[in-house]
Amino acid sequence: MRIIGIDPGTGILGFGVVDVIKGKLRLVDGGVIRTPVKEDDAIRLETIYSELTDIIKETHPDEMAVEKLFFAQNVTTAITVAQARGVVLLTGQQAKLRIAEYTPLQIKQALTGYGRADKKQIQEMVRVILDLKVAPQPDDCADAIACAITHSMFCST
Amino acid sequence: MRIIGIDPGTGILGFGVVDVIKGKLRLVDGGVIRTPVKEDDAIRLETIYSELTDIIKETHPDEMAVEKLFFAQNVTTAITVAQARGVVLLTGQQAKLRIAEYTPLQIKQALTGYGRADKKQIQEMVRVILDLKVAPQPDDCADAIACAITHSMFCST
Repeated sequence: MRIIGIDPGTGILGFGVVDVIKGKLRLVDGGVIRTPVKEDDAIRLETIYSELTDIIKETHPDEMAVEKLFFAQNVTTAITVAQARGVVLLTGQQAKLRIAEYTPLQIKQALTGYGRADKKQIQEMVRVILDLKVAPQPDDCADAIACAITHSMFCST
Repeated sequence: MRIIGIDPGTGILGFGVVDVIKGKLRLVDGGVIRTPVKEDDAIRLETIYSELTDIIKETHPDEMAVEKLFFAQNVTTAITVAQARGVVLLTGQQAKLRIAEYTPLQIKQALTGYGRADKKQIQEMVRVILDLKVAPQPDDCADAIACAITHSMFCST
């Protein structure tokens, strides 16, 4: 099974594609979609939509794991991230992917057994689990991969 | 000029299409897109995307006026509405519409000169301004039309 993990955001959206074969994980692709701060929201959302649609077409995932919003941040940021998240869910649905959602806490606990892991610890755990030489950069990409890894642990394959 | 006004929401999304000809307003179309509460967010967002895309194709608006989020409601609702709003902005951008955004306060003040107007007063003002026999129903539709009317007052046509 192939899982695409997404860490939603308007300025920078992380994605990571992971294969799960007989319980073993392999990184297929990972990166970020960046949109310019100066652009209108609508233009930025269209960029996310078209780039993510292309990534899904190229990598053919079976399922999508999306990070749930973390409410402790300020409301304006939460609204902007939620708008991007709406476009991400739409893109997954149009590609007929099964979609699951995980909170940052669930992801941290799945990877480290510890709800207070920081960004660096998550990056390092992603590196170890996927047997990579260097940790994925930037942390938005590592978070997206971590979300995909979390999904591989929750779903039965 | 033709304006499509949108009152975003996941359960019920209001829309209203208004023509502005030599400063006079005429209602072209109005209604709501409803999605079932029991469905997953992704499926509901896809319904909004496809139905709104069809409405834009059928009515050919030049500009889109979208109601901005009202933060006083609870955060979970705000997140859900923002996800729908992201899809609305995407749809407008894909149709190459010019997009403007108005807060509920701006809309109330534009229509009634009074920031504390209630739903019934807005519906009645929409009825009077557009010279309709009955006020548009439900209030989500009236709010969307009110947003389009507000835009007609702020833009120069």
